[in-house]
Amino acid sequence: MVDELAAGERRPLARLLTRIENGDPTVRPLLPQLFAAGRGGHVVGITGPPGSGKSTLVSALIGEWRRRGRRVGVLAVDPSSPYTRGAILGDRIRMMEHAADRDVFMRSMASRGELGGIAATTWIAAAALDAAGYDPILIETVGAGQSEVEVARVAETTVVVEAPEMGDEVQAIKAGLLEVADVIAVNKGDRPGADRAARQLRAMLSTAGGRVARQPPPVMVTTATSGDGVAALADAIEKHREAAREPIAARDRAAHQVRRGLADLAAQRAVTTDAWESTVDAVARRELDPMTAAERLLDR
Amino acid sequence: MVDELAAGERRPLARLLTRIENGDPTVRPLLPQLFAAGRGGHVVGITGPPGSGKSTLVSALIGEWRRRGRRVGVLAVDPSSPYTRGAILGDRIRMMEHAADRDVFMRSMASRGELGGIAATTWIAAAALDAAGYDPILIETVGAGQSEVEVARVAETTVVVEAPEMGDEVQAIKAGLLEVADVIAVNKGDRPGADRAARQLRAMLSTAGGRVARQPPPVMVTTATSGDGVAALADAIEKHREAAREPIAARDRAAHQVRRGLADLAAQRAVTTDAWESTVDAVARRELDPMTAAERLLDR
Repeated sequence: MVDELAAGERRPLARLLTRIENGDPTVRPLLPQLFAAGRGGHVVGITGPPGSGKSTLVSALIGEWRRRGRRVGVLAVDPSSPYTRGAILGDRIRMMEHAADRDVFMRSMASRGELGGIAATTWIAAAALDAAGYDPILIETVGAGQSEVEVARVAETTVVVEAPEMGDEVQAIKAGLLEVADVIAVNKGDRPGADRAARQLRAMLSTAGGRVARQPPPVMVTTATSGDGVAALADAIEKHREAAREPIAARDRAAHQVRRGLADLAAQRAVTTDAWESTVDAVARRELDPMTAAERLLDR
Repeated sequence: MVDELAAGERRPLARLLTRIENGDPTVRPLLPQLFAAGRGGHVVGITGPPGSGKSTLVSALIGEWRRRGRRVGVLAVDPSSPYTRGAILGDRIRMMEHAADRDVFMRSMASRGELGGIAATTWIAAAALDAAGYDPILIETVGAGQSEVEVARVAETTVVVEAPEMGDEVQAIKAGLLEVADVIAVNKGDRPGADRAARQLRAMLSTAGGRVARQPPPVMVTTATSGDGVAALADAIEKHREAAREPIAARDRAAHQVRRGLADLAAQRAVTTDAWESTVDAVARRELDPMTAAERLLDR
């Protein structure tokens, strides 16, 4: 199966991604092989609120990387929200201009709603695209919630897309997203406030200091519809690839992935024990505290 | 110690909360006792973006519950963001009007940045306030990120505060918050668009259907500065208390808390084994996949 992926065939990859998305238990034993078959493709998370023109920008980035001769993989991750689902799917139609390109592989993936579910699924799917030789592998996600932070920790490089007209209020909401940004794109650069918004963001990021141990992320101005600034954004993303692969950064990411794996595994095992139902019931009746309950389940 | 809490003394409670916040390991053995000493205080999460007037509303709610003869506990949970910190502290000054009231206990808690850290700390701190006889126990949090969703799962009832002027763009960003809402307050009800915003939210919530198995949350209009609608909001929160304590809801919350406990515990144990560093290094060098790494660590 991994050989078929390595040969660049689309159908085995599509089938594997379906199994990954469905949480098929036969995927688990493939992981060591899949991981070992990785070809070092750059995993890039792209996130930002609806209205920032993110999907158009992703489409423009795909075009730029294709001109550079790269095979591009795209995972469009839908959060589990029933409120935003329709809007997101509509938005992604813009990416369809690359649908006929054999060297672009696009896949929409739904979250299973479970804590950790989206991160685990995305991580394994990215490994599959890597084994199939795509580079970069773009993980596109919508919104400003838990899933974005989780997805950011799967990606080696996280791009946050903004739009200039977003007011102070929205800026504050998005502060959480800026924390995870390695590169920021102020899109819709042809609108009046774009350069000012970029300057404000740079000032905000440079004075944040203190608790932020690292270099502030570069703030790029792009106009996805005309293509202005898209090549420079692709360059900034490529440049971050090196920083992301420095031992300390790689180790931090690995530690987080293993922690996440431990959480998923411990929960999976506990849920399948005989004691799960009665233990949870005892906590619900307040006869047992959650930490002691967890300890008992883990020690079985 | 639990006896001192039960006697309603403030200093032992303040000291215990400091130990909880610092992650002091001597807190762990107290948990069964602390949990057993719970008096059934209603844990209410209150969240929403900066600019929604949330802190003023919390202050008005405290006043309302004081008039009803209740002792009110407040945990103001700061997310780890360096970008929003200043704004949040400034915002909370509005709650200080209750600082001299002996029957209001307010405490600001910082997150440790660790995944799960904020939820675990908040859960234990709420248990301490419960043992000390506060009811309701308000957990106030800012923003629209991972921590809010986590905090929502600690609370029995989650109130999301909105402001009427927030546009479509912001609505979409906040969809993630609406998913966790048990009660919604459209604050700044004296502004022109307030009633229209409330109607829009009600329509959005009632048509979301399908994937949402439960009753849509009530949407209340409040004006925190004048007090209009605050008593009705307090009533809506009280009403949800019963729903939150139905066996299915209590069980769901307990299952999530135990899962979270399992995740924290599995990670804590793995991190302290000799194999942790070398295993994470192997994942960072891509010699081992994260899931197999987690399995090995868990099986030691």
